[in-house]
Amino acid sequence: MSNIKPAIPKGTRDFSPVELAKRNYLKAQLIAGFERYGFQPIETPSFERSETLLGKYGDEGDRLIFRILNSGDKVKNADLGALERGELGKFSNSISQKALRYDLTVPFARYVAQYQNDIQFPFRRYQMQTVWRADRPQHGRFQEFLQCDADVVGERSLWQEVEGVLLYDRVFSKLHLKGVQIHLNHRKILAGIAEFIGAESQLIDFTVALDKLSKIGEEGVIGALQSKGFSAEKIQRLRPFLSLKGDFSSQLLAVSEVLKDIEIAQEGIEELKFIYKQLSRQSLNAVSIAFDVRLARGLNYYTGLILEVMPPEGIKMGSIGGGGRYDELTDLFGLKNTSGFGISFGFDRIFLVLEELDLFPSTIDSKTQLIFLNFGDASASYCFDHLTKLRDFNMACEMYPKEAKLKKQLNYAHLRSIPYVVILGSEEMQKEIFVLKNMVSGEQREYPLAQMLEVLKGLNPSN
Amino acid sequence: MSNIKPAIPKGTRDFSPVELAKRNYLKAQLIAGFERYGFQPIETPSFERSETLLGKYGDEGDRLIFRILNSGDKVKNADLGALERGELGKFSNSISQKALRYDLTVPFARYVAQYQNDIQFPFRRYQMQTVWRADRPQHGRFQEFLQCDADVVGERSLWQEVEGVLLYDRVFSKLHLKGVQIHLNHRKILAGIAEFIGAESQLIDFTVALDKLSKIGEEGVIGALQSKGFSAEKIQRLRPFLSLKGDFSSQLLAVSEVLKDIEIAQEGIEELKFIYKQLSRQSLNAVSIAFDVRLARGLNYYTGLILEVMPPEGIKMGSIGGGGRYDELTDLFGLKNTSGFGISFGFDRIFLVLEELDLFPSTIDSKTQLIFLNFGDASASYCFDHLTKLRDFNMACEMYPKEAKLKKQLNYAHLRSIPYVVILGSEEMQKEIFVLKNMVSGEQREYPLAQMLEVLKGLNPSN
Repeated sequence: MSNIKPAIPKGTRDFSPVELAKRNYLKAQLIAGFERYGFQPIETPSFERSETLLGKYGDEGDRLIFRILNSGDKVKNADLGALERGELGKFSNSISQKALRYDLTVPFARYVAQYQNDIQFPFRRYQMQTVWRADRPQHGRFQEFLQCDADVVGERSLWQEVEGVLLYDRVFSKLHLKGVQIHLNHRKILAGIAEFIGAESQLIDFTVALDKLSKIGEEGVIGALQSKGFSAEKIQRLRPFLSLKGDFSSQLLAVSEVLKDIEIAQEGIEELKFIYKQLSRQSLNAVSIAFDVRLARGLNYYTGLILEVMPPEGIKMGSIGGGGRYDELTDLFGLKNTSGFGISFGFDRIFLVLEELDLFPSTIDSKTQLIFLNFGDASASYCFDHLTKLRDFNMACEMYPKEAKLKKQLNYAHLRSIPYVVILGSEEMQKEIFVLKNMVSGEQREYPLAQMLEVLKGLNPSN
Repeated sequence: MSNIKPAIPKGTRDFSPVELAKRNYLKAQLIAGFERYGFQPIETPSFERSETLLGKYGDEGDRLIFRILNSGDKVKNADLGALERGELGKFSNSISQKALRYDLTVPFARYVAQYQNDIQFPFRRYQMQTVWRADRPQHGRFQEFLQCDADVVGERSLWQEVEGVLLYDRVFSKLHLKGVQIHLNHRKILAGIAEFIGAESQLIDFTVALDKLSKIGEEGVIGALQSKGFSAEKIQRLRPFLSLKGDFSSQLLAVSEVLKDIEIAQEGIEELKFIYKQLSRQSLNAVSIAFDVRLARGLNYYTGLILEVMPPEGIKMGSIGGGGRYDELTDLFGLKNTSGFGISFGFDRIFLVLEELDLFPSTIDSKTQLIFLNFGDASASYCFDHLTKLRDFNMACEMYPKEAKLKKQLNYAHLRSIPYVVILGSEEMQKEIFVLKNMVSGEQREYPLAQMLEVLKGLNPSN
């Protein structure tokens, strides 16, 4: 076989031990949070039947779904006519029946519908798995990335919304990430505004445009609405909502007054009031909440509270999480009347925020606490016995695998950030001592050989 | 959108919370073992460039690799001529440039070659990731499954082989899985036997046939060799090796005597002696080791020790792990002279063995320790404050999201295996008490409301 240049596809990543130490720390904090809040893990397959995924994310989504080529003879059914006619989707369908998951939401809805008779509702699940999108790779945007979702389905209760915000607060607290802002809004308030301005039939155009406010500004949104045929009068009635000021309660009150005759809006306002009241009883440590009537979130399956989590001020980055209440997600798979509320943590973005603010603990990098250097089989054999005993004692340690120059071996320990080194050569064996070197302080001490196990056990951080 | 039948592709699996509790327990034990032994995690992308994977696993392997269809316009380059001529591989190549990883070994070799200037050698890595194979799904054989590998590359040292066997022993000990057998052999002994019978040029045919001994028996192997053109004389000289008896040392001695003039065999025998001697110094708790001169392992990249891990007697199952020494794996990607030794744990099979022997701890199922029942917002609000405090105290707990009949709520707690239930309705609020029910014993006790936090904190198992 000829040499192949070692490289990975664009938009994918290898993770080194140093990077994984941090990623695993963040994962562990999220899992601990989910489990304290009573969420249980599930996992779904990496690929689903194409029909499960296609058509759920809009045309743009369909294009971004990675399809798996049929194996072996099954590519023979290629629809060449479709290819000739330029119907690439149809052609792809003829040679592909499976696709990599695009998010965790649709597979979760499929899971709930499929196992509805085995699940105890309300079902509190978390899921932390990779998803794949055939997006054009660019800085900070990957074709493979981790999603971390927690949802509870099968009961409509505003306590779930309250819990969701608290869970964000507590996880960010554990990560020492302060100053996070959670923007709250309610789909029924948006529906009420649409009714108020006389644009009920254009609710989707309206929310999609509004969702871009932070990106394209007030005038950008107005331009977008104009291009969708919104009249000047409608836009005039909308203007006050685009520039509300004040704290949570006063903004909510202002909106409530304008929309006082719109029943659906009042329902949303009542719900937000309950959520706000309950959250005010709890002490939020890492996050503050804001009512943001302009928040729309693009995903059309939301029906109640919607929320978006913004990084602390001064960090140039989009949302680091989001979620909301939905009512019809499992309908797609034949399960009706199953309301749910879900939140999502943007793993990669939170990772970058923690990096930028230097919030990863310095202690997570090196697991290996100790290395025995190797000066030939006679002393190595002695060291190896101790190595095994220390490992049995739950200490992470190693022995350098071969006799080599002291400098080379110490350099390895240094580069691996291993804090303690044991030196036992033939000379030390004869004098019945060993040398323990602290790689951080540089300090080096001799101990009687007979005390080796005892001394080294004392170094175990989990001791 | 019309209803879609909720189902997953054949050969894939969903994992429920109960299954995941067990899988995560097993994963955690493996990770703890790897890390005690100084291995560090890496992760590689789910898909690699096709050229990285294709041609590495033989023709059969190539057929089992899942390919990812090019996105969007890139399917236009389909090589229709190849399709017409029935060259399905070539056709597939024309519409696919990426493929899902088939194992962790080739991506690891690619990783080592790619980052050779950043890696501190000897590089001790473990990797626990999903792999995909387009195998025909059948009972116990999946298209998506987890592999768990630990390898050390960049130095040739027999201590690594010794460590590998010990790591198996210690991980199985922690899992309380006793009676595991590890079969050891050496590729140089096999090369020596081939030389001894005069079949050096047929070493691969010979080892492939031998590898099937446990499946097809002695006569089956002989038949396979005959069909590959092995003469009666060669087979006659081979016979003694197929039916050795006795313990490790005596079998090794017998082989050594027959092969006393074959230099390459003696090199392998010396290595096995060292490994056996060092392992004899350690107390093996869960595994016993056996010399098995018939063990060949199909994978041609092994060059030194090879090993295969067999489940305890009485369990009908193939190997639950395996590994060996290799010398040229990274050559494929342009990195020469990089010897490595690796072992692999067969996650799904070990899982089944633990199930069969009932070795999963009974305590891992339910994380949630406590649930507050819900009898309306007044008392629920009181409970919710305590819920938040207990969670902040690292206790996994929940509140039932809505007012519902006592029986329904208790049934939920029962089905979820939640051990403690708090009952606080308006009546209890008035009497300033709450009721704590132990779901295991059925016992129910009243406590003063003022002591709620204190009493419930006392239930925390991590306390």
